[in-house]
Amino acid sequence: MSSPLRKPLAQISSYRNGHAARLAARRGELTGNTAAVAPGYVQGNLCVLPQALASDFLRFAQRNPKSCPLIGVSEPGSRAVPELGLDLDVATDLPRYRIWRGGELIDEPSSVEDYWRDDLVAFVIGCSFTFEESLMTAGIPLRHVACGSNVTMYRTSIPTEPAGPFHGPMVVSMRPMKPADAIRAIQITSRFPAVHGAPVHIGLPEAIGIADIAKPDYGDPVEVRPDELPVFWACGVTPQSVIATAKPDFAITHAPGAMLVTDRRNTEYAVI
Amino acid sequence: MSSPLRKPLAQISSYRNGHAARLAARRGELTGNTAAVAPGYVQGNLCVLPQALASDFLRFAQRNPKSCPLIGVSEPGSRAVPELGLDLDVATDLPRYRIWRGGELIDEPSSVEDYWRDDLVAFVIGCSFTFEESLMTAGIPLRHVACGSNVTMYRTSIPTEPAGPFHGPMVVSMRPMKPADAIRAIQITSRFPAVHGAPVHIGLPEAIGIADIAKPDYGDPVEVRPDELPVFWACGVTPQSVIATAKPDFAITHAPGAMLVTDRRNTEYAVI
Repeated sequence: MSSPLRKPLAQISSYRNGHAARLAARRGELTGNTAAVAPGYVQGNLCVLPQALASDFLRFAQRNPKSCPLIGVSEPGSRAVPELGLDLDVATDLPRYRIWRGGELIDEPSSVEDYWRDDLVAFVIGCSFTFEESLMTAGIPLRHVACGSNVTMYRTSIPTEPAGPFHGPMVVSMRPMKPADAIRAIQITSRFPAVHGAPVHIGLPEAIGIADIAKPDYGDPVEVRPDELPVFWACGVTPQSVIATAKPDFAITHAPGAMLVTDRRNTEYAVI
Repeated sequence: MSSPLRKPLAQISSYRNGHAARLAARRGELTGNTAAVAPGYVQGNLCVLPQALASDFLRFAQRNPKSCPLIGVSEPGSRAVPELGLDLDVATDLPRYRIWRGGELIDEPSSVEDYWRDDLVAFVIGCSFTFEESLMTAGIPLRHVACGSNVTMYRTSIPTEPAGPFHGPMVVSMRPMKPADAIRAIQITSRFPAVHGAPVHIGLPEAIGIADIAKPDYGDPVEVRPDELPVFWACGVTPQSVIATAKPDFAITHAPGAMLVTDRRNTEYAVI
Protein backbone atom coordinates (compact mmCIF):
# COMPACT_ATOMS: atom_id res chain seq x y z
CA MET A 1 0.00 0.00 0.00
CA SER A 2 2.69 2.51 0.93
CA SER A 3 4.93 4.10 -1.69
CA PRO A 4 8.68 3.91 -0.97
CA LEU A 5 8.78 7.70 -1.64
CA ARG A 6 6.53 8.42 1.33
CA LYS A 7 7.94 8.21 4.82
CA PRO A 8 5.72 6.85 7.59
CA LEU A 9 4.21 9.76 9.53
CA ALA A 10 5.81 8.52 12.75
CA GLN A 11 9.26 8.90 11.20
CA ILE A 12 8.66 12.47 10.00
CA SER A 13 7.24 13.71 13.25
CA SER A 14 10.11 12.17 15.24
CA TYR A 15 12.61 14.63 13.71
CA ARG A 16 11.64 17.58 15.76
CA ASN A 17 14.82 19.50 14.90
CA GLY A 18 17.84 19.44 12.64
CA HIS A 19 20.03 17.61 15.12
CA ALA A 20 17.54 14.76 15.48
CA ALA A 21 17.32 14.44 11.70
CA ARG A 22 21.12 14.33 11.34
CA LEU A 23 21.46 11.69 14.07
CA ALA A 24 18.83 9.58 12.29
CA ALA A 25 20.73 9.88 9.00
CA ARG A 26 24.00 9.05 10.80
CA ARG A 27 22.41 5.90 12.25
CA GLY A 28 21.09 4.97 8.79
CA GLU A 29 17.43 5.36 9.79
CA LEU A 30 16.77 8.38 7.57
CA THR A 31 17.80 7.48 4.02
CA GLY A 32 15.36 9.37 1.76
CA ASN A 33 14.10 12.81 0.87
CA THR A 34 14.34 15.51 3.57
CA ALA A 35 11.31 17.52 2.43
CA ALA A 36 9.11 18.12 5.51
CA VAL A 37 11.83 16.79 7.84
CA ALA A 38 12.42 19.05 10.89
CA PRO A 39 10.16 21.91 9.75
CA GLY A 40 11.58 25.35 10.48
CA TYR A 41 15.22 24.23 10.26
CA VAL A 42 17.48 25.29 7.39
CA GLN A 43 18.43 22.61 4.89
CA GLY A 44 21.46 22.94 2.66
CA ASN A 45 22.88 21.59 -0.57
CA LEU A 46 26.27 19.91 -0.13
CA CYS A 47 29.24 20.17 -2.51
CA VAL A 48 32.59 18.70 -1.45
CA LEU A 49 35.65 19.50 -3.57
CA PRO A 50 39.41 18.98 -3.31
CA GLN A 51 41.26 21.88 -1.67
CA ALA A 52 43.01 22.62 -4.99
CA LEU A 53 39.65 23.81 -6.37
CA ALA A 54 38.39 25.50 -3.21
CA SER A 55 39.69 28.97 -3.97
CA ASP A 56 38.16 28.92 -7.46
CA PHE A 57 34.83 27.71 -6.09
CA LEU A 58 34.81 30.32 -3.32
CA ARG A 59 35.41 33.03 -5.93
CA PHE A 60 32.61 31.55 -8.04
CA ALA A 61 30.25 31.71 -5.06
CA GLN A 62 31.29 35.28 -4.23
CA ARG A 63 30.54 36.35 -7.81
CA ASN A 64 27.22 34.47 -8.00
CA PRO A 65 25.56 34.99 -4.62
CA LYS A 66 22.02 34.42 -5.89
CA SER A 67 22.82 31.04 -7.47
CA CYS A 68 25.43 29.92 -4.98
CA PRO A 69 24.68 31.35 -1.52
CA LEU A 70 27.22 29.72 0.82
CA ILE A 71 25.86 29.21 4.32
CA GLY A 72 28.82 27.19 5.59
CA VAL A 73 32.33 26.08 4.54
CA SER A 74 34.48 23.51 6.38
CA GLU A 75 38.17 23.84 7.19
CA PRO A 76 40.22 21.81 4.65
CA GLY A 77 39.99 18.13 5.59
CA SER A 78 37.38 18.74 8.27
CA ARG A 79 33.97 17.11 8.26
CA ALA A 80 32.61 19.72 10.68
CA VAL A 81 30.71 22.92 9.84
CA PRO A 82 30.17 24.26 13.37
CA GLU A 83 28.22 27.33 12.28
CA LEU A 84 25.46 25.01 11.05
CA GLY A 85 25.46 22.61 13.98
CA LEU A 86 27.94 21.63 16.71
CA ASP A 87 27.31 17.90 16.39
CA LEU A 88 27.46 17.80 12.59
CA ASP A 89 29.48 15.47 10.36
CA VAL A 90 29.04 16.13 6.64
CA ALA A 91 30.35 12.63 5.86
CA THR A 92 27.59 10.79 7.74
CA ASP A 93 24.70 13.17 8.46
CA LEU A 94 23.01 13.36 5.07
CA PRO A 95 20.57 10.60 4.10
CA ARG A 96 22.25 9.93 0.74
CA TYR A 97 25.24 11.17 -1.27
CA ARG A 98 26.56 11.13 -4.81
CA ILE A 99 30.22 10.43 -5.61
CA TRP A 100 31.66 11.93 -8.80
CA ARG A 101 34.94 11.16 -10.60
CA GLY A 102 35.82 13.31 -13.64
CA GLY A 103 32.17 14.41 -13.86
CA GLU A 104 30.82 10.82 -13.82
CA LEU A 105 28.47 9.58 -11.11
CA ILE A 106 30.09 6.46 -9.62
CA ASP A 107 28.24 5.77 -6.36
CA GLU A 108 25.19 6.77 -4.25
CA PRO A 109 26.14 5.78 -0.70
CA SER A 110 24.40 6.72 2.56
CA SER A 111 27.74 7.65 4.14
CA VAL A 112 30.95 9.00 2.61
CA GLU A 113 33.30 8.12 5.47
CA ASP A 114 35.10 5.65 3.20
CA TYR A 115 35.54 8.29 0.49
CA TRP A 116 36.74 11.09 2.76
CA ARG A 117 40.19 12.59 2.16
CA ASP A 118 42.30 15.06 4.09
CA ASP A 119 42.25 17.57 1.24
CA LEU A 120 38.47 17.88 0.91
CA VAL A 121 36.50 21.07 1.63
CA ALA A 122 32.75 20.94 2.26
CA PHE A 123 30.56 23.74 0.91
CA VAL A 124 26.97 24.07 2.13
CA ILE A 125 24.69 26.13 -0.10
CA GLY A 126 21.36 27.63 0.96
CA CYS A 127 18.17 26.13 -0.38
CA SER A 128 14.78 27.51 -1.31
CA PHE A 129 13.06 25.33 1.35
CA THR A 130 13.94 28.22 3.70
CA PHE A 131 11.94 30.88 1.88
CA GLU A 132 9.21 28.45 0.86
CA GLU A 133 8.27 28.10 4.52
CA SER A 134 7.71 31.88 4.67
CA LEU A 135 5.73 31.86 1.42
CA MET A 136 3.42 29.14 2.71
CA THR A 137 3.05 30.89 6.08
CA ALA A 138 1.96 33.97 4.10
CA GLY A 139 -0.77 31.89 2.44
CA ILE A 140 0.84 31.80 -1.00
CA PRO A 141 0.04 28.44 -2.64
CA LEU A 142 3.02 26.50 -4.02
CA ARG A 143 1.81 24.14 -6.69
CA HIS A 144 4.73 21.71 -6.56
CA VAL A 145 4.12 21.32 -2.82
CA ALA A 146 0.39 20.79 -3.40
CA CYS A 147 1.21 18.22 -6.10
CA GLY A 148 3.87 16.53 -3.98
CA SER A 149 6.31 16.93 -6.88
CA ASN A 150 9.81 18.35 -7.21
CA VAL A 151 10.08 22.06 -7.94
CA THR A 152 10.28 22.86 -11.67
CA MET A 153 13.77 23.90 -12.86
CA TYR A 154 15.25 25.20 -16.11
CA ARG A 155 18.70 25.85 -17.53
CA THR A 156 18.58 29.51 -18.71
CA SER A 157 20.48 31.79 -21.06
CA ILE A 158 21.59 33.87 -18.05
CA PRO A 159 25.35 33.29 -17.70
CA THR A 160 27.03 32.89 -14.33
CA GLU A 161 30.18 34.90 -13.62
CA PRO A 162 32.99 32.37 -14.18
CA ALA A 163 35.86 31.67 -11.79
CA GLY A 164 38.66 29.23 -12.63
CA PRO A 165 37.12 26.12 -14.21
CA PHE A 166 33.63 26.98 -12.93
CA HIS A 167 31.28 28.49 -15.50
CA GLY A 168 27.95 27.82 -17.15
CA PRO A 169 24.35 28.96 -17.27
CA MET A 170 22.21 29.84 -14.28
CA VAL A 171 19.63 27.22 -13.35
CA VAL A 172 16.35 28.62 -12.03
CA SER A 173 13.42 27.19 -10.14
CA MET A 174 9.94 28.28 -11.24
CA ARG A 175 6.80 28.70 -9.20
CA PRO A 176 3.55 29.78 -10.93
CA MET A 177 1.66 32.47 -9.01
CA LYS A 178 -1.19 34.91 -9.40
CA PRO A 179 0.22 38.42 -9.93
CA ALA A 180 -0.64 39.73 -6.46
CA ASP A 181 0.93 36.62 -4.87
CA ALA A 182 3.99 37.08 -7.10
CA ILE A 183 4.43 40.64 -5.80
CA ARG A 184 4.11 39.42 -2.21
CA ALA A 185 6.54 36.56 -2.93
CA ILE A 186 9.09 39.05 -4.29
CA GLN A 187 8.78 41.02 -1.05
CA ILE A 188 9.07 37.94 1.16
CA THR A 189 11.99 36.31 -0.64
CA SER A 190 13.85 39.66 -0.74
CA ARG A 191 14.15 39.21 3.03
CA PHE A 192 16.24 36.04 2.46
CA PRO A 193 19.30 37.10 0.42
CA ALA A 194 21.31 34.24 1.98
CA VAL A 195 19.01 31.65 0.40
CA HIS A 196 18.65 32.83 -3.24
CA GLY A 197 16.75 36.01 -2.29
CA ALA A 198 14.38 37.76 -4.70
CA PRO A 199 13.43 36.23 -8.05
CA VAL A 200 15.74 36.83 -11.01
CA HIS A 201 12.90 36.89 -13.54
CA ILE A 202 9.14 36.97 -13.90
CA GLY A 203 6.64 36.48 -16.63
CA LEU A 204 8.59 36.12 -19.88
CA PRO A 205 10.33 32.70 -19.96
CA GLU A 206 11.60 33.11 -23.54
CA ALA A 207 13.55 36.22 -22.44
CA ILE A 208 15.81 33.97 -20.34
CA GLY A 209 16.14 31.21 -22.91
CA ILE A 210 13.31 28.94 -21.81
CA ALA A 211 11.76 27.73 -25.05
CA ASP A 212 9.02 25.55 -23.59
CA ILE A 213 7.74 26.18 -20.07
CA ALA A 214 6.15 22.71 -20.09
CA LYS A 215 9.55 21.03 -20.47
CA PRO A 216 11.77 21.69 -17.46
CA ASP A 217 15.42 20.58 -17.50
CA TYR A 218 15.23 19.35 -13.88
CA GLY A 219 12.40 18.51 -11.47
CA ASP A 220 8.80 18.02 -12.51
CA PRO A 221 6.66 20.12 -14.87
CA VAL A 222 3.84 22.11 -13.30
CA GLU A 223 0.85 23.87 -14.83
CA VAL A 224 0.99 27.66 -15.32
CA ARG A 225 -2.64 28.75 -15.46
CA PRO A 226 -3.87 31.67 -17.60
CA ASP A 227 -4.29 33.90 -14.54
CA GLU A 228 -0.74 33.17 -13.32
CA LEU A 229 2.79 34.32 -14.08
CA PRO A 230 5.83 32.05 -13.89
CA VAL A 231 8.22 33.42 -11.25
CA PHE A 232 11.88 32.37 -11.45
CA TRP A 233 14.44 32.14 -8.65
CA ALA A 234 18.16 31.37 -8.93
CA CYS A 235 18.54 27.75 -7.90
CA GLY A 236 21.09 25.74 -5.94
CA VAL A 237 21.25 23.30 -8.83
CA THR A 238 23.35 25.98 -10.60
CA PRO A 239 26.56 25.17 -8.68
CA GLN A 240 25.92 21.42 -9.09
CA SER A 241 25.53 21.91 -12.83
CA VAL A 242 28.61 24.15 -12.92
CA ILE A 243 30.67 21.57 -11.00
CA ALA A 244 29.51 18.82 -13.36
CA THR A 245 30.65 20.97 -16.30
CA ALA A 246 34.06 21.55 -14.67
CA LYS A 247 34.52 17.75 -14.31
CA PRO A 248 36.74 17.82 -11.21
CA ASP A 249 38.78 14.68 -10.54
CA PHE A 250 36.70 14.04 -7.43
CA ALA A 251 33.59 15.54 -5.86
CA ILE A 252 30.86 14.61 -3.42
CA THR A 253 27.34 16.08 -3.44
CA HIS A 254 24.11 15.30 -1.66
CA ALA A 255 21.72 13.07 -3.61
CA PRO A 256 18.79 15.11 -5.02
CA GLY A 257 16.31 15.89 -2.25
CA ALA A 258 18.47 14.35 0.50
CA MET A 259 19.83 17.52 2.07
CA LEU A 260 21.90 18.47 5.08
CA VAL A 261 19.46 19.47 7.84
CA THR A 262 21.08 22.08 10.10
CA ASP A 263 20.54 23.55 13.56
CA ARG A 264 19.88 27.01 12.15
CA ARG A 265 16.31 28.18 11.94
CA ASN A 266 14.84 29.51 8.68
CA THR A 267 13.83 32.70 10.47
CA GLU A 268 17.48 33.47 11.29
CA TYR A 269 18.11 34.06 7.58
CA ALA A 270 15.56 36.86 7.20
CA VAL A 271 17.47 40.16 7.07
CA ILE A 272 14.46 42.21 8.16
CA MET B 1 10.44 78.53 -29.96
CA SER B 2 9.54 77.55 -26.41
CA SER B 3 6.50 75.40 -25.68
CA PRO B 4 4.14 76.73 -22.99
CA LEU B 5 4.39 73.30 -21.32
CA ARG B 6 8.10 73.71 -20.70
CA LYS B 7 9.24 76.01 -17.94
CA PRO B 8 12.42 78.06 -18.51
CA LEU B 9 15.36 76.27 -16.92
CA ALA B 10 16.07 79.31 -14.71
CA GLN B 11 12.63 78.97 -13.14
CA ILE B 12 12.99 75.24 -12.38
CA SER B 13 16.41 75.55 -10.83
CA SER B 14 15.33 78.48 -8.66
CA TYR B 15 12.99 76.22 -6.63
CA ARG B 16 15.68 74.58 -4.62
CA ASN B 17 13.23 73.27 -2.03
CA GLY B 18 9.54 72.85 -1.33
CA HIS B 19 9.21 76.13 0.55
CA ALA B 20 10.66 78.13 -2.35
CA ALA B 21 8.23 76.42 -4.75
CA ARG B 22 5.24 77.17 -2.49
CA LEU B 23 6.23 80.83 -2.13
CA ALA B 24 6.52 81.10 -5.92
CA ALA B 25 3.05 79.58 -6.34
CA ARG B 26 1.71 81.93 -3.62
CA ARG B 27 3.14 84.95 -5.48
CA GLY B 28 1.60 83.67 -8.73
CA GLU B 29 4.95 83.04 -10.39
CA LEU B 30 4.62 79.25 -10.51
CA THR B 31 1.35 78.41 -12.25
CA GLY B 32 2.00 75.15 -14.12
CA ASN B 33 3.05 71.56 -13.67
CA THR B 34 5.21 70.74 -10.63
CA ALA B 35 7.07 67.82 -12.25
CA ALA B 36 10.82 68.38 -11.68
CA VAL B 37 10.11 71.26 -9.29
CA ALA B 38 12.19 71.08 -6.05
CA PRO B 39 13.66 67.60 -6.69
CA GLY B 40 13.86 65.43 -3.61
CA TYR B 41 10.84 67.04 -1.89
CA VAL B 42 7.55 65.22 -1.45
CA GLN B 43 4.64 66.39 -3.59
CA GLY B 44 1.06 65.67 -2.64
CA ASN B 45 -2.38 65.46 -4.20
CA LEU B 46 -4.90 67.84 -2.59
CA CYS B 47 -8.55 67.08 -1.81
CA VAL B 48 -10.57 69.59 0.21
CA LEU B 49 -13.99 68.53 1.47
CA PRO B 50 -16.64 69.95 3.81
CA GLN B 51 -16.27 68.78 7.41
CA ALA B 52 -19.57 66.87 7.12
CA LEU B 53 -17.82 64.41 4.77
CA ALA B 54 -14.47 64.35 6.55
CA SER B 55 -15.18 61.36 8.76
CA ASP B 56 -16.41 59.29 5.81
CA PHE B 57 -13.36 60.25 3.76
CA LEU B 58 -10.96 59.46 6.60
CA ARG B 59 -12.55 56.02 6.96
CA PHE B 60 -12.24 55.55 3.20
CA ALA B 61 -8.53 56.42 3.37
CA GLN B 62 -7.99 54.09 6.33
CA ARG B 63 -9.59 51.23 4.41
CA ASN B 64 -7.72 51.94 1.18
CA PRO B 65 -4.18 52.84 2.20
CA LYS B 66 -2.59 51.88 -1.11
CA SER B 67 -4.93 54.08 -3.19
CA CYS B 68 -5.38 56.86 -0.68
CA PRO B 69 -2.25 57.27 1.47
CA LEU B 70 -2.88 60.37 3.60
CA ILE B 71 0.32 62.27 4.38
CA GLY B 72 -1.42 65.26 5.97
CA VAL B 73 -4.86 66.43 7.15
CA SER B 74 -5.74 69.99 8.25
CA GLU B 75 -7.78 70.95 11.28
CA PRO B 76 -11.36 71.81 10.20
CA GLY B 77 -11.34 75.31 8.66
CA SER B 78 -7.58 75.57 8.74
CA ARG B 79 -5.46 76.14 5.65
CA ALA B 80 -2.34 74.91 7.45
CA VAL B 81 -0.85 71.40 7.38
CA PRO B 82 2.15 71.95 9.64
CA GLU B 83 3.50 68.40 9.36
CA LEU B 84 4.16 69.08 5.67
CA GLY B 85 5.60 72.61 6.06
CA LEU B 86 5.40 75.33 8.70
CA ASP B 87 4.87 78.14 6.17
CA LEU B 88 2.23 76.32 4.15
CA ASP B 89 -1.19 77.59 3.02
CA VAL B 90 -3.19 75.05 1.03
CA ALA B 91 -5.39 77.87 -0.34
CA THR B 92 -2.54 79.73 -2.07
CA ASP B 93 0.51 77.47 -2.36
CA LEU B 94 -0.47 75.23 -5.23
CA PRO B 95 0.06 76.47 -8.79
CA ARG B 96 -3.52 75.71 -9.87
CA TYR B 97 -6.74 74.32 -8.39
CA ARG B 98 -10.03 72.85 -9.50
CA ILE B 99 -13.33 73.85 -7.90
CA TRP B 100 -16.18 71.32 -7.94
CA ARG B 101 -19.89 71.75 -7.16
CA GLY B 102 -22.07 68.64 -7.16
CA GLY B 103 -19.40 66.79 -9.11
CA GLU B 104 -19.15 69.49 -11.82
CA LEU B 105 -15.90 71.38 -12.50
CA ILE B 106 -16.74 75.09 -12.24
CA ASP B 107 -13.39 76.91 -12.01
CA GLU B 108 -9.60 76.45 -12.32
CA PRO B 109 -8.13 79.29 -10.24
CA SER B 110 -4.51 79.78 -9.13
CA SER B 111 -5.70 80.56 -5.57
CA VAL B 112 -8.74 79.37 -3.61
CA GLU B 113 -8.70 82.08 -0.94
CA ASP B 114 -12.02 83.39 -2.29
CA TYR B 115 -13.58 79.92 -2.13
CA TRP B 116 -12.35 79.02 1.35
CA ARG B 117 -14.91 78.21 4.06
CA ASP B 118 -14.62 77.62 7.76
CA ASP B 119 -15.96 74.06 7.46
CA LEU B 120 -13.39 72.79 4.95
CA VAL B 121 -10.86 70.07 5.71
CA ALA B 122 -7.76 69.64 3.51
CA PHE B 123 -6.48 66.14 2.77
CA VAL B 124 -3.03 65.69 1.27
CA ILE B 125 -2.42 62.34 -0.41
CA GLY B 126 0.99 60.88 -1.24
CA CYS B 127 2.06 60.75 -4.86
CA SER B 128 4.20 58.36 -6.89
CA PHE B 129 6.71 61.15 -7.68
CA THR B 130 8.26 60.14 -4.34
CA PHE B 131 9.03 56.56 -5.29
CA GLU B 132 9.82 57.47 -8.91
CA GLU B 133 12.85 59.40 -7.67
CA SER B 134 14.15 56.21 -6.02
CA LEU B 135 13.40 54.15 -9.13
CA MET B 136 15.35 56.55 -11.33
CA THR B 137 18.21 56.72 -8.83
CA ALA B 138 18.34 52.91 -9.07
CA GLY B 139 18.76 53.22 -12.83
CA ILE B 140 15.31 51.91 -13.73
CA PRO B 141 14.08 53.68 -16.87
CA LEU B 142 10.61 55.26 -16.65
CA ARG B 143 9.22 55.61 -20.14
CA HIS B 144 6.68 58.34 -19.37
CA VAL B 145 9.51 60.43 -17.91
CA ALA B 146 11.70 59.77 -20.96
CA CYS B 147 8.77 60.72 -23.20
CA GLY B 148 7.89 63.79 -21.14
CA SER B 149 4.31 62.52 -20.93
CA ASN B 150 1.88 61.92 -18.08
CA VAL B 151 1.99 58.54 -16.42
CA THR B 152 -0.45 56.01 -17.94
CA MET B 153 -3.51 55.30 -15.77
CA TYR B 154 -6.45 52.90 -15.93
CA ARG B 155 -9.72 52.38 -14.09
CA THR B 156 -9.65 48.73 -12.97
CA SER B 157 -12.08 46.05 -11.85
CA ILE B 158 -10.45 46.08 -8.39
CA PRO B 159 -13.05 47.59 -6.02
CA THR B 160 -12.11 50.00 -3.25
CA GLU B 161 -13.48 49.39 0.24
CA PRO B 162 -16.40 51.84 0.49
CA ALA B 163 -17.03 54.28 3.34
CA GLY B 164 -20.10 56.51 3.46
CA PRO B 165 -20.70 57.96 -0.02
CA PHE B 166 -17.18 57.11 -1.17
CA HIS B 167 -16.87 54.03 -3.35
CA GLY B 168 -15.72 52.99 -6.79
CA PRO B 169 -12.95 51.19 -8.65
CA MET B 170 -9.25 51.49 -7.96
CA VAL B 171 -7.36 53.59 -10.49
CA VAL B 172 -3.82 52.35 -11.19
CA SER B 173 -0.77 53.86 -12.82
CA MET B 174 1.23 51.63 -15.17
CA ARG B 175 4.94 51.62 -15.92
CA PRO B 176 6.35 49.14 -18.45
CA MET B 177 9.55 47.48 -17.28
CA LYS B 178 11.86 44.62 -18.14
CA PRO B 179 11.25 41.73 -15.71
CA ALA B 180 14.47 42.21 -13.69
CA ASP B 181 13.71 45.95 -13.36
CA ALA B 182 10.13 45.10 -12.33
CA ILE B 183 11.43 42.88 -9.52
CA ARG B 184 13.79 45.65 -8.36
CA ALA B 185 10.94 48.19 -8.60
CA ILE B 186 8.75 45.99 -6.41
CA GLN B 187 11.53 45.92 -3.81
CA ILE B 188 12.13 49.67 -3.98
CA THR B 189 8.50 50.77 -3.87
CA SER B 190 7.81 48.33 -1.00
CA ARG B 191 9.99 50.69 1.05
CA PHE B 192 7.43 53.48 0.52
CA PRO B 193 4.12 52.25 1.93
CA ALA B 194 3.11 55.86 2.65
CA VAL B 195 3.13 56.69 -1.06
CA HIS B 196 1.25 53.79 -2.69
CA GLY B 197 3.93 51.22 -1.80
CA ALA B 198 4.40 48.02 -3.80
CA PRO B 199 2.52 47.38 -7.04
CA VAL B 200 -0.96 45.90 -6.85
CA HIS B 201 -0.58 43.94 -10.10
CA ILE B 202 1.91 42.87 -12.72
CA GLY B 203 1.78 41.38 -16.16
CA LEU B 204 -1.85 40.43 -16.84
CA PRO B 205 -3.88 43.62 -17.48
CA GLU B 206 -7.07 41.73 -18.39
CA ALA B 207 -7.09 40.13 -14.93
CA ILE B 208 -7.79 43.57 -13.42
CA GLY B 209 -10.33 44.66 -16.01
CA ILE B 210 -8.05 46.48 -18.45
CA ALA B 211 -9.35 45.48 -21.88
CA ASP B 212 -6.86 47.46 -24.00
CA ILE B 213 -3.48 48.43 -22.57
CA ALA B 214 -3.08 50.99 -25.40
CA LYS B 215 -6.14 52.94 -24.20
CA PRO B 216 -5.61 54.39 -20.74
CA ASP B 217 -8.47 56.09 -18.93
CA TYR B 218 -6.21 58.91 -17.69
CA GLY B 219 -2.77 60.22 -18.66
CA ASP B 220 -0.98 59.30 -21.86
CA PRO B 221 -0.57 55.89 -23.49
CA VAL B 222 2.92 54.40 -23.49
CA GLU B 223 4.44 51.50 -25.41
CA VAL B 224 4.81 48.14 -23.64
CA ARG B 225 7.57 46.36 -25.57
CA PRO B 226 7.65 42.56 -26.08
CA ASP B 227 10.46 42.17 -23.52
CA GLU B 228 8.57 44.17 -20.89
CA LEU B 229 5.77 43.60 -18.39
CA PRO B 230 3.23 46.26 -17.43
CA VAL B 231 3.56 46.97 -13.70
CA PHE B 232 0.58 48.54 -11.92
CA TRP B 233 0.54 50.71 -8.79
CA ALA B 234 -2.48 52.03 -6.90
CA CYS B 235 -2.84 55.67 -7.93
CA GLY B 236 -3.80 58.90 -6.19
CA VAL B 237 -6.34 59.50 -8.92
CA THR B 238 -8.45 56.83 -7.16
CA PRO B 239 -9.66 59.21 -4.39
CA GLN B 240 -10.26 61.95 -6.97
CA SER B 241 -12.36 59.58 -9.04
CA VAL B 242 -14.16 58.35 -5.91
CA ILE B 243 -14.92 61.93 -4.83
CA ALA B 244 -16.21 62.76 -8.31
CA THR B 245 -18.52 59.73 -8.08
CA ALA B 246 -19.79 60.84 -4.65
CA LYS B 247 -20.65 64.29 -6.09
CA PRO B 248 -20.19 66.32 -2.89
CA ASP B 249 -21.88 69.74 -2.80
CA PHE B 250 -18.46 71.35 -2.78
CA ALA B 251 -14.86 70.23 -3.19
CA ILE B 252 -11.48 71.62 -4.11
CA THR B 253 -8.67 69.59 -5.67
CA HIS B 254 -5.31 70.42 -7.24
CA ALA B 255 -5.36 70.76 -11.04
CA PRO B 256 -3.76 67.69 -12.68
CA GLY B 257 0.03 67.90 -12.38
CA ALA B 258 -0.02 71.05 -10.23
CA MET B 259 0.71 69.53 -6.84
CA LEU B 260 1.41 70.71 -3.33
CA VAL B 261 5.20 70.73 -2.89
CA THR B 262 6.07 70.05 0.76
CA ASP B 263 9.07 70.49 3.06
CA ARG B 264 9.33 66.73 3.63
CA ARG B 265 12.02 64.84 1.75
CA ASN B 266 11.19 61.79 -0.33
CA THR B 267 13.78 59.80 1.62
CA GLU B 268 11.85 60.37 4.88
CA TYR B 269 9.08 58.14 3.55
CA ALA B 270 11.25 55.07 3.09
CA VAL B 271 10.50 52.66 5.95
CA ILE B 272 13.83 50.85 5.62
